[in-house]
Amino acid sequence: MAGFTLPGDQTRSKGTAMTPKAIHSQPDRRQPGQPSHQRDLDPHLHRYAQRTAGMTASEIRALFAVASRPEVVSLAGGMPYLPALPLDSLAGDLAQIVAIEGMTALQYGSAQGTAQLREQICEVMSLEGIRAHADDVTVTVGSQMALDMVTRIFCDPGDVVLAEAPSYVGALTTFASYQAQVVHVAMDDDGLIPAELDATLQALRAEGRTAKFLYTIPNFHNPAGVTLAVARRAEVLDLCAQHGLLIIEDNPYGLLGFDGQIYPAMRAADPDNVVYLGSFSKTFAPGLRVGWALAPHAVREKLVLAAESATLCPPAFTQAVVSRYLAQHDWKGQIKSYQEAYRVRRDALLAALPQYLPVGCRWTQPAGGFYVWLTVPDGLDTKAMLPRAVTQRVAYVPGTAFYADSDRSRAGRLMRLSFCYPTPERIVEGVRRLAAVLNGELELQRTFGSVRPRAVSGPQSPAPDTA
Amino acid sequence: MAGFTLPGDQTRSKGTAMTPKAIHSQPDRRQPGQPSHQRDLDPHLHRYAQRTAGMTASEIRALFAVASRPEVVSLAGGMPYLPALPLDSLAGDLAQIVAIEGMTALQYGSAQGTAQLREQICEVMSLEGIRAHADDVTVTVGSQMALDMVTRIFCDPGDVVLAEAPSYVGALTTFASYQAQVVHVAMDDDGLIPAELDATLQALRAEGRTAKFLYTIPNFHNPAGVTLAVARRAEVLDLCAQHGLLIIEDNPYGLLGFDGQIYPAMRAADPDNVVYLGSFSKTFAPGLRVGWALAPHAVREKLVLAAESATLCPPAFTQAVVSRYLAQHDWKGQIKSYQEAYRVRRDALLAALPQYLPVGCRWTQPAGGFYVWLTVPDGLDTKAMLPRAVTQRVAYVPGTAFYADSDRSRAGRLMRLSFCYPTPERIVEGVRRLAAVLNGELELQRTFGSVRPRAVSGPQSPAPDTA
Repeated sequence: MAGFTLPGDQTRSKGTAMTPKAIHSQPDRRQPGQPSHQRDLDPHLHRYAQRTAGMTASEIRALFAVASRPEVVSLAGGMPYLPALPLDSLAGDLAQIVAIEGMTALQYGSAQGTAQLREQICEVMSLEGIRAHADDVTVTVGSQMALDMVTRIFCDPGDVVLAEAPSYVGALTTFASYQAQVVHVAMDDDGLIPAELDATLQALRAEGRTAKFLYTIPNFHNPAGVTLAVARRAEVLDLCAQHGLLIIEDNPYGLLGFDGQIYPAMRAADPDNVVYLGSFSKTFAPGLRVGWALAPHAVREKLVLAAESATLCPPAFTQAVVSRYLAQHDWKGQIKSYQEAYRVRRDALLAALPQYLPVGCRWTQPAGGFYVWLTVPDGLDTKAMLPRAVTQRVAYVPGTAFYADSDRSRAGRLMRLSFCYPTPERIVEGVRRLAAVLNGELELQRTFGSVRPRAVSGPQSPAPDTA
Repeated sequence: MAGFTLPGDQTRSKGTAMTPKAIHSQPDRRQPGQPSHQRDLDPHLHRYAQRTAGMTASEIRALFAVASRPEVVSLAGGMPYLPALPLDSLAGDLAQIVAIEGMTALQYGSAQGTAQLREQICEVMSLEGIRAHADDVTVTVGSQMALDMVTRIFCDPGDVVLAEAPSYVGALTTFASYQAQVVHVAMDDDGLIPAELDATLQALRAEGRTAKFLYTIPNFHNPAGVTLAVARRAEVLDLCAQHGLLIIEDNPYGLLGFDGQIYPAMRAADPDNVVYLGSFSKTFAPGLRVGWALAPHAVREKLVLAAESATLCPPAFTQAVVSRYLAQHDWKGQIKSYQEAYRVRRDALLAALPQYLPVGCRWTQPAGGFYVWLTVPDGLDTKAMLPRAVTQRVAYVPGTAFYADSDRSRAGRLMRLSFCYPTPERIVEGVRRLAAVLNGELELQRTFGSVRPRAVSGPQSPAPDTA
């Protein structure tokens, strides 16, 4: 990767080689002659828990750090398009929260979250047909924390969890941190395939293994962009009930259907066997980190105790912000604004892909959410070509990010394209650059044959702050 | 506990028996005749991870829910005295954050925390003699999350961690949730006793066991109220270095010395072998949930990866609030206001205790922080008498909360009294009520002999929202 530079960046690169390594590395305290690999230097190496075995920073992260630079069109991150928010009126709300509710909003709060917000969350979920009691809602620091808590209370090391192939990278990271073993279940354009789920459950049973839960993103899937067909939802619920499998329904994008369509939550049909995870990160603002879990009553009790040991309580202040927002603003109208912003971006991406990409590419057609799932021509490797893409000022997330370690080999030709943040014009420019990269790769392939990719460990997606 | 009622509460108790059970219980979905114990009803019981074995809600929690009612003088909780904050000027700050920094403060951020806040945290820590690089700071959702992350990266199930006897209940809960085994080390009025630490380390070595770390609260200890003598700090550091033991230095109260005294952090003397945990919950406001870990560089890398799998990133918004507060307000002056507020409360408590309590009580003399550690006369049991204390409208936390399960038998005569929240007058009234309870217990003891306490499992301290 020597000589990896970004064109058009003479000023910033002056005096520093813009290699991923140089950008990623921390202030160097090593003496000359010491080995360069961080882990060799770590005097605490013998002390770490076994679960840290998979916790190593990957070189791929450095690429995303470069990708966050303004000259790069990032189709990599999942940052919501916040300019759609009414910041001026929000500013007034915030001042009021401190002045009027400061004594509670700045104080410790309940580990379960405020009663007011939990009531409001029930109202939000009712849009998806969910009838729930506020007492069964646990507010968390983003739905990522809900996922962490669910895994904490259900998964011993070695336990099996089922997840779609591909699945959300943050879920895979959490499952790995609890040493759970992910078994993927295939999807098609209508989402998770019930027959594949059935076959997987039968196969596990034949091996004498039991999965703890199915983790699924039914709506506008991250990264696949597909939605579980309504008819399949009952089948999946039935199969899981038959096999005694809990369902974790992760639904951050459910209200972001581009035609205003809202699918019925699986939780609505089976309150006793589904833990539903929700979030205000995509319908309002991720910087508040307010998410939730709606769980069967007995599970909720364990969730709250687990959450209390993790953070004592979610921030009372950010909960007050969300509560006031829901009470005083046209939050449904705001969701419509978001839908519109993402719809025009999705349209720009779906129009540009056939126009610019080489023959042999195919992709999903999302009806909502943030993502398109792209398959590149045979012989190409999306992870191997990422450095060249970033050099050409376009970024994406390679498919490997969305599979558990053992299944990454399946992901070579896959990538996730996010259309949530750049303008439509930038999205088109990004696709044009991506097409140039793909054509260059195909040219190389014709000349030299396909290149075997190097193994890369650690988080394979952008850090949260790099879009 | 039948007939457990609060005097002077005719209105609120009308129509509902004010038993802890009635207050604690959730909307009842059971059919008549079904067993009343929640766990018997849980269809998910076979699915839980082993680590949930200790996660059961205790009846004692219900008492604290009662204790949060206004007629009760609560010496139980650790809620900071927020009326000391300048809410009006804070309100203006908040509006500015949204208007000026909204696009970043409401967006996803770095898993490690914002660079600005990490720089400011280094400035705060410099007051304790710490020289640190912002790159080694990880911002967390309260220092509770820092503790959770440290335990996550270091502790496999069954691993030994050392902690003072008594120790912070939230730490014990976290250690339990990772199935770590706590070995307590005795303290005296000068904090952790180095000779006891040495003996414990030798004993562990003789058994072929190695502890992962020593968890210690050197300043204004929670719950013991004592401070580790400066001369002992070097001894503890040396012993830990000799035995290859990492130190987790938890320091939420360090800047709350009532004479303005600030003790040198142990981290200042040994940057490579101490993970320092800090918090803005006591020096600013807990409702923001902003804490941090300062860790040796290699450890920090693991901490960030663990934190990312737990919450993706801490809330950018609350970090912006703290950053602006530190930049624009006289935060050192505010800490002085807090010191003064707590000093007069401490003085009121320490004056009332000898005036009212029966012979045979003894207590610590805190020079800062929130807590006094009280020993009651021989034969009394602080946990058994808590329901009667709450009936007499005073609450405290029984000593059992602050010991790992196996050591709780040592705690029968102990309790923690918090002086942080009630007014000095209410504190005196609370001590008067507590004295009446103790005298009543002594009277009972003289009549019937001492009563063997019932075993209680689960969290033994107030929930975060009940002071």
